[in-house]
Amino acid sequence: MARAQFSAETSGSGEFVRQPNRFTGRVTPDSDSPPGGGPDAHGRWPLEAGRYRLVWCRACPWAHRARILLGLLGLDDAISLATVDPIRDERGWRFTLDPGGRDPALGISYLSEAYLATDPGYTGRVTVPALVDTLTGRVVSNDYPQLTLDLSTQWRSLHRPGAPDLYPVGLRDELDALMAEIHRDVNNGVYRCGFAISQAAYDEAFTALFARLDALSDRLADQRYLMGDAITEADVRLFTTLVRFDAAYHGHFKCNRHKLTELPVLWAYARDLFQTPGFGDTVDFDHIKRHYYGTHPAINPTGIVPLGPDTSGWAAPHGRG
Amino acid sequence: MARAQFSAETSGSGEFVRQPNRFTGRVTPDSDSPPGGGPDAHGRWPLEAGRYRLVWCRACPWAHRARILLGLLGLDDAISLATVDPIRDERGWRFTLDPGGRDPALGISYLSEAYLATDPGYTGRVTVPALVDTLTGRVVSNDYPQLTLDLSTQWRSLHRPGAPDLYPVGLRDELDALMAEIHRDVNNGVYRCGFAISQAAYDEAFTALFARLDALSDRLADQRYLMGDAITEADVRLFTTLVRFDAAYHGHFKCNRHKLTELPVLWAYARDLFQTPGFGDTVDFDHIKRHYYGTHPAINPTGIVPLGPDTSGWAAPHGRG
Repeated sequence: MARAQFSAETSGSGEFVRQPNRFTGRVTPDSDSPPGGGPDAHGRWPLEAGRYRLVWCRACPWAHRARILLGLLGLDDAISLATVDPIRDERGWRFTLDPGGRDPALGISYLSEAYLATDPGYTGRVTVPALVDTLTGRVVSNDYPQLTLDLSTQWRSLHRPGAPDLYPVGLRDELDALMAEIHRDVNNGVYRCGFAISQAAYDEAFTALFARLDALSDRLADQRYLMGDAITEADVRLFTTLVRFDAAYHGHFKCNRHKLTELPVLWAYARDLFQTPGFGDTVDFDHIKRHYYGTHPAINPTGIVPLGPDTSGWAAPHGRG
Repeated sequence: MARAQFSAETSGSGEFVRQPNRFTGRVTPDSDSPPGGGPDAHGRWPLEAGRYRLVWCRACPWAHRARILLGLLGLDDAISLATVDPIRDERGWRFTLDPGGRDPALGISYLSEAYLATDPGYTGRVTVPALVDTLTGRVVSNDYPQLTLDLSTQWRSLHRPGAPDLYPVGLRDELDALMAEIHRDVNNGVYRCGFAISQAAYDEAFTALFARLDALSDRLADQRYLMGDAITEADVRLFTTLVRFDAAYHGHFKCNRHKLTELPVLWAYARDLFQTPGFGDTVDFDHIKRHYYGTHPAINPTGIVPLGPDTSGWAAPHGRG
């Protein structure tokens, strides 16, 4: 059963290997296309406020990054939001939270409709986030790491005044290296723990995960954010995994050396971010738990969703001012 | 799959309903049988040092109770121990830890052999603890709650000098009521959480479990043991569940409002017992984790055993002297 569910993304040694992202279009201010046009010869789409729609799931850490950036950068008015149900059915992510079960802007019931409208031969997993063009109904991008960097760099003319620079030019080499480690060992590392179907693959992922969390704890012991005094993209990416840690990964994915609440530096760091506008107000523990526990029958066949953990601690003072 | 594994012990509403105990013989000093004889007309077996063998599994909380009592009461020399492998195969508990995979005293490879020798028509789950007569090979009892009470009361002539009175006559009414609540909501309650196959059955078990743990925390806030200043049978019964809580029940059975380590009174109480001779020295976290995670494919199909939790905290000072 485990093998059946994950066969397309499981290696011969039982390791989870995430599929590549299919749609890698980019919205940029230097697109050759005219306003209202499609992608130019380089796959670049024209920058236009009100045109694109971000399809996200409140449960999904990859999509959550982009949702947080919309708020931090003041792009809420420029890019509209579509929120899918946390529970996929056999056809995937669905717009059952909308009236009539249909996204009012895109006019579709399943995100897969947009995928297939863009690539009729698509057979991979349909994923969020997806940036969709409301004029053509085509998927511009499901390439989540590039998407958020573009929100910071390509959409700058539409940022709110005083928006943070989440990807500062002078820090990019260090940021890229740090985010690569966090991706491998933490963001994707929790999935490698949870979706491993051999003990050896699990053990390796678990060990790398907690070694990385320990290293990040050391790094954050005497600075407020990962890169110093200011929030960057790296903090957003780490946050979206940490906020799901105790609610989903600790039990469901067996990331259980400690709970986040038992790692003092990371727990205070995560609370600090949670209490920052744009972070905690976009978290939905109910969606997170129902998604993870409800949609992975290979590791939770009963589909029962735990009543825990107690999340009241997220509101406690963090002491990292 | 969940339904298949648990069908015989699952109610129509998806609740786990533990099977009754089949063998209810008792070793008593007032058996009518002569030494070396079998059970008398009342099912009572003669009290004899060196005759009976306790079959236990280090992982099993029900069996662990009896193991702890052997140590506390000084019955280690009077009743011998047989330890089964924490992993059952399709024929159940097995003596693979012994040379040749055979219990040297009983001469059997599977505990089921003793069950079937006693009742050839037995079709239920084969369970530990089982007190087995080494003379006849018959199972005297798998009735775990009566077994430990009998070790305290019927085996008294073989206790070590100064052995604690775990079931004092004057406290029995209160003890029995308390142990019934602990059994329903905690000892068996964690199984009712983990083996529920309906959300409603899980929710009810979870709520009762943590309400009871909160009540027990209140009770233990200003007294060292459940009945006051001295250890009783109730402490043994609560301990065998608490010591498995974070290693198995928190994640595997979704008992995850808090870890034991997050419940200050119960955590200190459990450490106090753990550090008492007869308790912690009989705990094997490796067997516990391999058993639970390795033998319930209906709730852990991959069979992967978590590397966590960190158990180093059990040695920390408890401050309850």
